[in-house]
Amino acid sequence: MKKVAVVGASGYTGRELLTLISRHRSMQATEVMTARPGAQPEPPQFPTDPVIAPLDLDRLKSCDGVFLCTPHGAASAIAKAALQHGCKVVDLSADFRLRDEKLYAEVYGAPHPAPELLQEAVYGLTEHARAAVAKARLIANPGCYPTSVLLPVLPLLQNGMLDPNAPIIADSKSGASGAGKNPGERTHFGNVHENFCAYGVGVHRHAPEIRQEAGTQRIVFTPHLLPTFRGILSTIYLTPKPGVTADAMRSCLHERYAHEPFVKVYAQGWPELKCVQHLNHCHMAVGASGPLVVVVSAIDNLVKGASGQALQNMNVMLGLPETEGLQ
Amino acid sequence: MKKVAVVGASGYTGRELLTLISRHRSMQATEVMTARPGAQPEPPQFPTDPVIAPLDLDRLKSCDGVFLCTPHGAASAIAKAALQHGCKVVDLSADFRLRDEKLYAEVYGAPHPAPELLQEAVYGLTEHARAAVAKARLIANPGCYPTSVLLPVLPLLQNGMLDPNAPIIADSKSGASGAGKNPGERTHFGNVHENFCAYGVGVHRHAPEIRQEAGTQRIVFTPHLLPTFRGILSTIYLTPKPGVTADAMRSCLHERYAHEPFVKVYAQGWPELKCVQHLNHCHMAVGASGPLVVVVSAIDNLVKGASGQALQNMNVMLGLPETEGLQ
Amino acid sequence: MKKVAVVGASGYTGRELLTLISRHRSMQATEVMTARPGAQPEPPQFPTDPVIAPLDLDRLKSCDGVFLCTPHGAASAIAKAALQHGCKVVDLSADFRLRDEKLYAEVYGAPHPAPELLQEAVYGLTEHARAAVAKARLIANPGCYPTSVLLPVLPLLQNGMLDPNAPIIADSKSGASGAGKNPGERTHFGNVHENFCAYGVGVHRHAPEIRQEAGTQRIVFTPHLLPTFRGILSTIYLTPKPGVTADAMRSCLHERYAHEPFVKVYAQGWPELKCVQHLNHCHMAVGASGPLVVVVSAIDNLVKGASGQALQNMNVMLGLPETEGLQ
Amino acid sequence: MKKVAVVGASGYTGRELLTLISRHRSMQATEVMTARPGAQPEPPQFPTDPVIAPLDLDRLKSCDGVFLCTPHGAASAIAKAALQHGCKVVDLSADFRLRDEKLYAEVYGAPHPAPELLQEAVYGLTEHARAAVAKARLIANPGCYPTSVLLPVLPLLQNGMLDPNAPIIADSKSGASGAGKNPGERTHFGNVHENFCAYGVGVHRHAPEIRQEAGTQRIVFTPHLLPTFRGILSTIYLTPKPGVTADAMRSCLHERYAHEPFVKVYAQGWPELKCVQHLNHCHMAVGASGPLVVVVSAIDNLVKGASGQALQNMNVMLGLPETEGLQ
Repeated sequence: MKKVAVVGASGYTGRELLTLISRHRSMQATEVMTARPGAQPEPPQFPTDPVIAPLDLDRLKSCDGVFLCTPHGAASAIAKAALQHGCKVVDLSADFRLRDEKLYAEVYGAPHPAPELLQEAVYGLTEHARAAVAKARLIANPGCYPTSVLLPVLPLLQNGMLDPNAPIIADSKSGASGAGKNPGERTHFGNVHENFCAYGVGVHRHAPEIRQEAGTQRIVFTPHLLPTFRGILSTIYLTPKPGVTADAMRSCLHERYAHEPFVKVYAQGWPELKCVQHLNHCHMAVGASGPLVVVVSAIDNLVKGASGQALQNMNVMLGLPETEGLQ
Repeated sequence: MKKVAVVGASGYTGRELLTLISRHRSMQATEVMTARPGAQPEPPQFPTDPVIAPLDLDRLKSCDGVFLCTPHGAASAIAKAALQHGCKVVDLSADFRLRDEKLYAEVYGAPHPAPELLQEAVYGLTEHARAAVAKARLIANPGCYPTSVLLPVLPLLQNGMLDPNAPIIADSKSGASGAGKNPGERTHFGNVHENFCAYGVGVHRHAPEIRQEAGTQRIVFTPHLLPTFRGILSTIYLTPKPGVTADAMRSCLHERYAHEPFVKVYAQGWPELKCVQHLNHCHMAVGASGPLVVVVSAIDNLVKGASGQALQNMNVMLGLPETEGLQ
Repeated sequence: MKKVAVVGASGYTGRELLTLISRHRSMQATEVMTARPGAQPEPPQFPTDPVIAPLDLDRLKSCDGVFLCTPHGAASAIAKAALQHGCKVVDLSADFRLRDEKLYAEVYGAPHPAPELLQEAVYGLTEHARAAVAKARLIANPGCYPTSVLLPVLPLLQNGMLDPNAPIIADSKSGASGAGKNPGERTHFGNVHENFCAYGVGVHRHAPEIRQEAGTQRIVFTPHLLPTFRGILSTIYLTPKPGVTADAMRSCLHERYAHEPFVKVYAQGWPELKCVQHLNHCHMAVGASGPLVVVVSAIDNLVKGASGQALQNMNVMLGLPETEGLQ
Repeated sequence: MKKVAVVGASGYTGRELLTLISRHRSMQATEVMTARPGAQPEPPQFPTDPVIAPLDLDRLKSCDGVFLCTPHGAASAIAKAALQHGCKVVDLSADFRLRDEKLYAEVYGAPHPAPELLQEAVYGLTEHARAAVAKARLIANPGCYPTSVLLPVLPLLQNGMLDPNAPIIADSKSGASGAGKNPGERTHFGNVHENFCAYGVGVHRHAPEIRQEAGTQRIVFTPHLLPTFRGILSTIYLTPKPGVTADAMRSCLHERYAHEPFVKVYAQGWPELKCVQHLNHCHMAVGASGPLVVVVSAIDNLVKGASGQALQNMNVMLGLPETEGLQ
């Protein structure tokens, strides 16, 4: 039985992770902490709430693995301590996703808090980094939007199916849990319910992350806020190379993911949020639309887009079956 | 005081039209009918429901104008009768939107029921057809999605700001009222609430309508179903001609619509559904995103996307102030 | 044309009032102010937002009437100034609803800020206070929950139809707009959407208000938070006097409200929130259930439960048609 | 490993049951069938949908247990066949809940389809029928509303804490999944979203069921439809015997359920739907409100109100740990 810590357990991703781990047969969350230094332990509001202890880095010693469900900027110091204790670390924040220290500073508005770890961190899009994940000490768990975009786009890029001069356009829509648990204007019920909007047009922090992993600057990414709690659906507009059909692109994806337990490529129909909610799945479908090819992908932002993929990575790092706790 | 008939008053657009007309100072809905031949009058379920009479074409004689809120295919016969009675007709269905009889047959799967009226019908995107609307006997009221796409795109096309070889991509999201009042799988609460999906990818009937009015086949259009009741938000990806900036495109739209009461071009920020719900407005904003320019437009699908624009057109046809009942 | 001020225009009730007044033919909102002393004017976020000026009591001089859409405690000082300027005042806050200064202090946790006005203020449940409203300088606009409970219960009490020893139980459910526009735990999307709860059980501030107006301490009141934006539905459990039937109670209400434009007593069926949203109506229905009689009432909390009733009262105070701007 | 059949697997309760069983370590759903005689097998719409075989009673032979997730009226014939094959049967429909054949005919509008089984069937409110469930061949799984009412009320009745002449009033609110998967007016998105209503006032079929199990006719029960998918919250108004306090009633419930894994009695605070969604829990809290005592209870209608309790019962019948698959 592996012992893990969940640091930052009061937010949505921390809570989701605890639910997933509770169904895991060979992993136990022995340490459940807040990430805020100096915060008092809070009594659970409801009987089903977890008891969250104060932050205590020493207690990580006893853990095989540590999950960091903290805001960006706060994860680095805890990651360093955990690595020194010999723990495997999966960081769900953005701290280690961008490999370029300067780009991080530009995008996140502050110098990187632990640049010495940047080269070591592995970007944990599990299906595309399994071998590196298995050997890693520190995983940068991918952003929710990038996961929904990279899973369908990477195989098409790697197989040279896309026009290298055309933009790759990802029109992405996310449920409100992506904006976190802290109350604010953006997440006020009156501003989400019966509403819908685009935000961060041309400037969202996940665009550089997608560009880095896709290896191209031609990414156009627009996030939107849905009046749902869970789920991301990305509608991706691609220009195929001359002679490449939508069917060929579907076949490419189908082959690439045929043996992946968490990726489904539809032979017909289109994925919806409800197909993937509460699952660690990414579903995708491909079709022609005028001169372009449209790919629609769907994930649960809290599972495959965060806590589920984090657990998938930790399973791989600790030598456990990759799907354990996730089926 | 002008007298009008609303035929097909039990659906969402008919109901919305009655609400708008009730606030109109010089128009009265003197005839409120079902569009289903042979249907019995139904007693209102609630005290605020309208009383809906059976279909009776003779009673249209006394009306200055007739609104057709019927399913496509059913409007043509009623339009013919109303025109013979000398009424002005605004058809909210799709019957007269496509000018090409063959294209209609292909898209709607049946021969056109009144091809002799096709050339006469005016496509009533009011801001772009005001003079023709004023002289028309028969208006094809634009589809909800096309309204949200054409209002921002037409001025940019007309001013030659777009790369003529690049696709115009409209990623559109609509509230569930667009799917109508009849219960079905698609509109079951359990399939809409906390869900989101794309549909009609590459094959939706509004794509040919947009192509016709934009005068180009390069339209890529993807509709999506939002878990809201009202509203359409379209995110439109455009490739500018070399040298044309997002600022220039914003200025173009701003100038074009500076004197239009129902179109707002944002100097900053982005429109949301809640900005336009219950209003006859189209709001739009423009920004750069990588190599492309993104335009976001928002309308209320039941108002500017249907009943509001229909009333706007009828006002113009009957010589009333265009904004009456709509402010 | 009457001139009115809306003080506290940035909240939900202030905004709703501006919408209603914009449709009024003989009233104009000439002053639109924040209620926060010292607050800077905020540029509107969206083109359809009102421009809100800083608080300036002197400018109230030019107004015939003043609406106070402020938090409780803040209204009293502004009311005093407005009255000194000779304005008619409708206060939508709780400041003048409880006539007993001591009860106010107990319920609201602070001494009353203007006890000298308490006896003068008229509790403006218009249908039950029309004559007094017409002569009043200062109206305490009723709470949203009390409006939904008192309209059905008062006639039954006044006609002696209820067992004087049995409790009157109001199980009330309100949309989230009742909790106001400020972000907080209670109104975070993740805590309202797909959720439902009771709150303030046995201790809500509207219970003493209902007790005062109903003239009995036998009120049991439980508010609940619905995952909707608008609307209150109250399910009221009543014990009839021996021999009094549900039919008799329905007849009593039907007669009492036969000539009231804003109250509908159903002959059959039951009201729903959607029957009254955006309307200044109270709908109610009556039926037997075992040994008790159940009354269900529905209002829009922002209209008949707040701004609509406020405008109805102001119309009466200023000698305008009572229904103007409200139909 | 026990083998079970799920008959009627395409509805919400059938689907929920399959999810729960998939997490069970010693139970497998070896037969997954539709309940409609003659229905063809439908290919799954989405990759995560179950494959549903046609109804084939012979295949039940190989099963230890059979779950009937069918409409009322349809379960009886299948139950008879399954019992003849020696299976343990949990019927989630209403067929065996009312023990009185005449009452069934009156309430459900048709003669009972298998009256010979009525006396044998055990009403499976597990916490109150564990011993009988363990010995039963046929379980009538309780209705969702009755579960939410009986769990808090039964111990108070059994301990004589309630005034025997006062009504027991249950004001219950349910998510729309309670109305099932078939599209209709009641469950159309436009009629549920941003709406709320009471229905079946004084005449709902669950009232006789509550009366039977509570052993009193003094039940007043009003169901309401929430704009949520999952969950029931019941607000219950009770008249204590003289001298009995809310604290005493809370203690009574606390003691009664201290060792029950699925029932939580709150020492403070009030349960919300989100506390119990996706869980087989019933949460409850008790407080004074004027002369009455209010109990609020919450369950997930699809879990403790249907499939979860069904699995709990099947576990008991098959000698498995009662909580298996449910934690």
